[in-house]
Amino acid sequence: MLNPNIETFLCCDADYPSAELVLFGAPFDSTTSYRPGTRFGSRAIRSESFGLESYSPYQDKDLEDCSIFDSGDLELSMGSCALALEQIQERTAIILQDGKIPVMLGGEHLVTLGAVRAAAQQYPDLHIIHFDAHADLRQEYLGVELSHACVLRRCWDILGDNRIYQFGIRSGTREEFLWSSAGHTNMQKFNFAQLKQTIAQLQGKPIYFTIDLDVLDPSIFPGTGTPEAGGVGFLDLLQAIHTVCAGSHIVGCDVNELCPAYDASGVSTAVACKVVRELLLELSTKK
Amino acid sequence: MLNPNIETFLCCDADYPSAELVLFGAPFDSTTSYRPGTRFGSRAIRSESFGLESYSPYQDKDLEDCSIFDSGDLELSMGSCALALEQIQERTAIILQDGKIPVMLGGEHLVTLGAVRAAAQQYPDLHIIHFDAHADLRQEYLGVELSHACVLRRCWDILGDNRIYQFGIRSGTREEFLWSSAGHTNMQKFNFAQLKQTIAQLQGKPIYFTIDLDVLDPSIFPGTGTPEAGGVGFLDLLQAIHTVCAGSHIVGCDVNELCPAYDASGVSTAVACKVVRELLLELSTKK
Amino acid sequence: MLNPNIETFLCCDADYPSAELVLFGAPFDSTTSYRPGTRFGSRAIRSESFGLESYSPYQDKDLEDCSIFDSGDLELSMGSCALALEQIQERTAIILQDGKIPVMLGGEHLVTLGAVRAAAQQYPDLHIIHFDAHADLRQEYLGVELSHACVLRRCWDILGDNRIYQFGIRSGTREEFLWSSAGHTNMQKFNFAQLKQTIAQLQGKPIYFTIDLDVLDPSIFPGTGTPEAGGVGFLDLLQAIHTVCAGSHIVGCDVNELCPAYDASGVSTAVACKVVRELLLELSTKK
Amino acid sequence: MLNPNIETFLCCDADYPSAELVLFGAPFDSTTSYRPGTRFGSRAIRSESFGLESYSPYQDKDLEDCSIFDSGDLELSMGSCALALEQIQERTAIILQDGKIPVMLGGEHLVTLGAVRAAAQQYPDLHIIHFDAHADLRQEYLGVELSHACVLRRCWDILGDNRIYQFGIRSGTREEFLWSSAGHTNMQKFNFAQLKQTIAQLQGKPIYFTIDLDVLDPSIFPGTGTPEAGGVGFLDLLQAIHTVCAGSHIVGCDVNELCPAYDASGVSTAVACKVVRELLLELSTKK
Amino acid sequence: MLNPNIETFLCCDADYPSAELVLFGAPFDSTTSYRPGTRFGSRAIRSESFGLESYSPYQDKDLEDCSIFDSGDLELSMGSCALALEQIQERTAIILQDGKIPVMLGGEHLVTLGAVRAAAQQYPDLHIIHFDAHADLRQEYLGVELSHACVLRRCWDILGDNRIYQFGIRSGTREEFLWSSAGHTNMQKFNFAQLKQTIAQLQGKPIYFTIDLDVLDPSIFPGTGTPEAGGVGFLDLLQAIHTVCAGSHIVGCDVNELCPAYDASGVSTAVACKVVRELLLELSTKK
Amino acid sequence: MLNPNIETFLCCDADYPSAELVLFGAPFDSTTSYRPGTRFGSRAIRSESFGLESYSPYQDKDLEDCSIFDSGDLELSMGSCALALEQIQERTAIILQDGKIPVMLGGEHLVTLGAVRAAAQQYPDLHIIHFDAHADLRQEYLGVELSHACVLRRCWDILGDNRIYQFGIRSGTREEFLWSSAGHTNMQKFNFAQLKQTIAQLQGKPIYFTIDLDVLDPSIFPGTGTPEAGGVGFLDLLQAIHTVCAGSHIVGCDVNELCPAYDASGVSTAVACKVVRELLLELSTKK
Repeated sequence: MLNPNIETFLCCDADYPSAELVLFGAPFDSTTSYRPGTRFGSRAIRSESFGLESYSPYQDKDLEDCSIFDSGDLELSMGSCALALEQIQERTAIILQDGKIPVMLGGEHLVTLGAVRAAAQQYPDLHIIHFDAHADLRQEYLGVELSHACVLRRCWDILGDNRIYQFGIRSGTREEFLWSSAGHTNMQKFNFAQLKQTIAQLQGKPIYFTIDLDVLDPSIFPGTGTPEAGGVGFLDLLQAIHTVCAGSHIVGCDVNELCPAYDASGVSTAVACKVVRELLLELSTKK
Repeated sequence: MLNPNIETFLCCDADYPSAELVLFGAPFDSTTSYRPGTRFGSRAIRSESFGLESYSPYQDKDLEDCSIFDSGDLELSMGSCALALEQIQERTAIILQDGKIPVMLGGEHLVTLGAVRAAAQQYPDLHIIHFDAHADLRQEYLGVELSHACVLRRCWDILGDNRIYQFGIRSGTREEFLWSSAGHTNMQKFNFAQLKQTIAQLQGKPIYFTIDLDVLDPSIFPGTGTPEAGGVGFLDLLQAIHTVCAGSHIVGCDVNELCPAYDASGVSTAVACKVVRELLLELSTKK
Repeated sequence: MLNPNIETFLCCDADYPSAELVLFGAPFDSTTSYRPGTRFGSRAIRSESFGLESYSPYQDKDLEDCSIFDSGDLELSMGSCALALEQIQERTAIILQDGKIPVMLGGEHLVTLGAVRAAAQQYPDLHIIHFDAHADLRQEYLGVELSHACVLRRCWDILGDNRIYQFGIRSGTREEFLWSSAGHTNMQKFNFAQLKQTIAQLQGKPIYFTIDLDVLDPSIFPGTGTPEAGGVGFLDLLQAIHTVCAGSHIVGCDVNELCPAYDASGVSTAVACKVVRELLLELSTKK
Repeated sequence: MLNPNIETFLCCDADYPSAELVLFGAPFDSTTSYRPGTRFGSRAIRSESFGLESYSPYQDKDLEDCSIFDSGDLELSMGSCALALEQIQERTAIILQDGKIPVMLGGEHLVTLGAVRAAAQQYPDLHIIHFDAHADLRQEYLGVELSHACVLRRCWDILGDNRIYQFGIRSGTREEFLWSSAGHTNMQKFNFAQLKQTIAQLQGKPIYFTIDLDVLDPSIFPGTGTPEAGGVGFLDLLQAIHTVCAGSHIVGCDVNELCPAYDASGVSTAVACKVVRELLLELSTKK
Repeated sequence: MLNPNIETFLCCDADYPSAELVLFGAPFDSTTSYRPGTRFGSRAIRSESFGLESYSPYQDKDLEDCSIFDSGDLELSMGSCALALEQIQERTAIILQDGKIPVMLGGEHLVTLGAVRAAAQQYPDLHIIHFDAHADLRQEYLGVELSHACVLRRCWDILGDNRIYQFGIRSGTREEFLWSSAGHTNMQKFNFAQLKQTIAQLQGKPIYFTIDLDVLDPSIFPGTGTPEAGGVGFLDLLQAIHTVCAGSHIVGCDVNELCPAYDASGVSTAVACKVVRELLLELSTKK
Repeated sequence: MLNPNIETFLCCDADYPSAELVLFGAPFDSTTSYRPGTRFGSRAIRSESFGLESYSPYQDKDLEDCSIFDSGDLELSMGSCALALEQIQERTAIILQDGKIPVMLGGEHLVTLGAVRAAAQQYPDLHIIHFDAHADLRQEYLGVELSHACVLRRCWDILGDNRIYQFGIRSGTREEFLWSSAGHTNMQKFNFAQLKQTIAQLQGKPIYFTIDLDVLDPSIFPGTGTPEAGGVGFLDLLQAIHTVCAGSHIVGCDVNELCPAYDASGVSTAVACKVVRELLLELSTKK
């Protein structure tokens, strides 16, 4: 008797009922305005994770000791943002209702909106920690409001002022920067300078944590649709993830914008895998 | 005094009023279900055309003798098919109303729908000659009806039975093949065998001619989203284009599905450029 | 309750007991002498198969109607050929003993030896149909006898004269060609000319069918370790597969030597997927 | 009535008479000794600039507020350095005579010589600020004096001692370093350490500013013919450009040595676009 | 005592005095007007030849039985065509004077001019057999007469009418085709149709044989600067080489225009290696 | 009379008897568990070294002043680790016995074992300085003990405790880290912090120095089989090499794990060339 072929991120092979974290992929990139292909991100992360060790010398923790379930990729409706966002919201809601933490792998950044809708329903006092190179605060982009370039603005539509904290931002229109500084979001340009203070201040609040991997410098993360030089270093990001996870009440999170087609060397995918491993280890309560 | 930087396909630099053919690009690929990137197709064709001669030894004709205007690429709303199709329809309608032949460069195949809508309005008796590897006859795909996988079905919604003639088809669901053979479209599987008869039979009818370049064998045209082995040869395609253009009343046409990201050697783009050159020379009444 | 992430080739999701065909991957390439990387072949075929339709217009059959189980990739000992071959032999033997047909996806061609060992044990009168660009008949290569360049010679060690029928061969040392023509194997150079006669002649014999995809011309299959110009066409190969499957008693088979790292456009992987689909449809007794 | 297809770097669409800065491309690489392809640099920068925002959060300035004209690429005589340099000199001279600042996009570094010839004619007291990984000070290279490896030496032939200030240099022959330190040029090895002092000291002098992008570390700028590890960081370069532009009387400048063929991820082109944007914003007197 | 590292094409390791054929590389591409990089062609052919067998099943001959010397690549002056051509002429002249046949590996096609100059000096009655996709008959290109696009025109300057026989030509300006058909060269468009008759007719004449590999269809030879669809097949080329070599008095030859940078899969280099192997075996008088 | 084609790293063309350093390549990667291809590393380093200057501005020394012999690549038995290691050991032993320093270019890291066996025989008190991202201390990997993942453990089998000093390690299983910290090796995680003290402490001991290039951050060195973000910088590595070479009695060394297939831009190979140049200049006693 042979077994069926179950594929998971690294050793995330807990059964669903006992899992405290639940991974899933959201392979969607229909609104990408520049170079598409992030739809292959989650699949690449899962597939290449076998080149990674489950043990982290940074945290001295091992994924083999954690209880994580990987429920695979959603089958999303390319060409219909509304439908795709519903499918994401539904999956996220199930996981939240079962008292687990959803960890979504994008896909383009718009997918965050589906997860935030579900999280905001469960946690009306939801706050967002947002790592990104781009502000993503446009009201619309080329006539479209459900666009990756507008995703945090759409989250603001739900949550309102003083709920969104942005870090590492180094690209956007003048209007986006002005709109943010008018008090709608809290933005730390270029780096993580005010992160510790922010986390201290948000003590106890339910946090959705969204990581657009292009917050990293493209020297270490070239494989993304819109690379922006001048980003943060890999160890800076690990440290920032630690700061967020150690001090916050994370209720959901995502890692997005890996575009394997622009990752000729495979380093970007390897980086994404390691970021996911470190994030999962930080979120896991077991050791 | 220096001149602005006007870029055109090869030497398609006639002024608009005197042009008989009008090129434009439709850089859209939001519904692509597999590998996106055809949005860069029209730009690549224009940009790489300077590596091509304007003279064709096949036809002994030269683009320099033709009157063709290149109006550049539309700026389409990635993420909203409805909006993008309207923009394409509008551009096509202007060209048709000015008594010229639109030659659209895709983009994914869905863009054809925008042009066909405009052409069917101008020519209610419109027929379609369709070269493709894929049937594109699904009623819906992943819940979406405006999808590249459904584009000829959407054209059928407008035109009805006995208006669509398909050639080279070698991929689809069983349902698509059955639906076609139930009398809705005329399909020549695998090659161009019945093309001459078809053209003779359609004598005098207004024809929209849509070429999905993946009708070519991927050995010569690898740079496309969904390559299907077993396709037609390059010289077969040139011959078939000649058959169509010499014997029909073409009112509009398009060439689509070049995806430069999967064209590492640049051959696919060079092939697309040559197909466009030969098509333009066939359509031009000047010599 | 969410489901675990089961990945299979296309819709090969039968349960094991009811399956008549069983797929598995043998990701091994330790002896590759030129350009390694076929270890990623089976994974790429499985992963990219979702870009393919389950229906074949060539055979008018659909994989959805077949009973095929995909048991995933073996975890082989890179660096130890002896161990890896044992693991392959063991998996093949289980499938054969359960009365099913093993369909192995390589990996380099050496993996065939493991499967042939198991098949020869079950079927002492085993014959081999071998499609390849290379003779693979060396006694040893750089001092090593368990090498991809020696695999058919090692099969001959087991089976002896008049059991191995080779087609499409167009590369080898002078010694290999001389050794074959001394009566040890039956070799059709360059193409499939004598295939029909051979199949007729082998009527009723148990056949192991091994397809090295580099038998194809590299224009349509560039993604392999040692590409050899002058190969057969894709439709020739489909026809030859049909000839073999329709007329023989196939007891096991494999498809190998896809090397995704040399497949920049993805066409080679798409070709491999289609070859596997057509092979499975030919082998399936259901319609 | 449709418009012709005008392509410019970002929004550099001022009309020529009102422009204060004039961009043009010099697509030439005939003397490249190692890996050619910079001829495609200017075209790639223009073409990919649409992925960039016109607003800079570093300077809080927007290109939309500037008056810049993009006159496109020169059509240079590949295979004849003398002719190509004349064509560059001529274009530069026109722009200088019209009281505007030429901003040339290479091409290999030899193109600088054409522009410097024109600038030195207009401004006999011309000084050069040179950012580069390579000294470019050879008397000849493989018997050729008009070579990219000799370009600053050829500039020295025109300007003489104490006119050329080099920064970031980390590669060259022993002879080049000795010749420089004999007093012919002022060279800051490896970084920008003495830049501020230099700029202060050159107060009021007419400056030609030439940026070989390979001064950047290849981690962030791999897409160049001769990458040299150990370079400066992206933010270091932005700061250095600010230092030069804020404190000098720039009369002409260029950015060169982007080689898109070695830029698989597109990051190098994105970096070049951003460097050009920041440079233009620094040079523009409008805000 | 260890040996120095001698690298040759396959087993072309005869000593110079006893060799009948002498290989050398001409790594030059300064005049390439479109995509440069053929300078790496000869090096790639030599380096990748170790993936090829020395035995040819097409000719049943083995390179190990031949006497061929590989004298490596010339060090040419990139940026100076005149100098480079002199260096090529000089090397060719030495080989000719020593009674051997030079086999030059390009580089761009202009290198042929250097070799033809030497051959025409030795053999005033020299004729040229030319396989190519491009006519290469321009009087000048962008103001330059020593250009790859003019190389056969420059050879005509030396040899005059009725000395140059072109095959496979499928690209050029109208002027080139007209100039040829005015009686200056004998041109067979598209294929090798008249090759046998030509060879019969040239019986006994000294022949220089120049093969631009882009005569091949880009499906099998994508790795070249200016790929032109509609070319000849690999086996057609082998047959044509056989026709030329078996029936002519070849005094020199070359194989050029491989551009490895556009050969992602390595197939083009493998094809070039095999063409060179077959050519050498055809030319060798030993068996 | 023409010369044979001798290829060496840069200008390492001393004759063997007078050489103090001897380069050779070990193109082996049969045990690579993730992405193979380092077998092409030594060849790429030699071949691309011609793009590098022989003069180092870091050390103000020139390779032209050194006495270094390049004996080329070994021809190793792919598929048999035991045989390959013997061949490496034999070559290393000859060089050591002739009183010269072997400098081996990998290949995967397992090749170090062959060289260490020879060195330990000559110098029973041998110590190892090991730069790497990976601990390489497994007892076995997938049932195989001669694996790249076990290479330092195999060296420990020969040398025992307190002989191996590891730097930069940032990946491994929990068991490897525990085994090391149990006193078997001295490990500096992540960086070179304790390097100076270590070197001082090893004063006078015979040192084998092995550099796995993946100790570098993948931003500057992406072209390797298992890239690990968070590595050391290029200048850090140069400084560390200086620290080791200036203060130790080096008896042998190697540089390994360049995998050119994952080096699309060529930067990794250029980095490897520069590391080798700097290492050779440090080791050379001449100036």
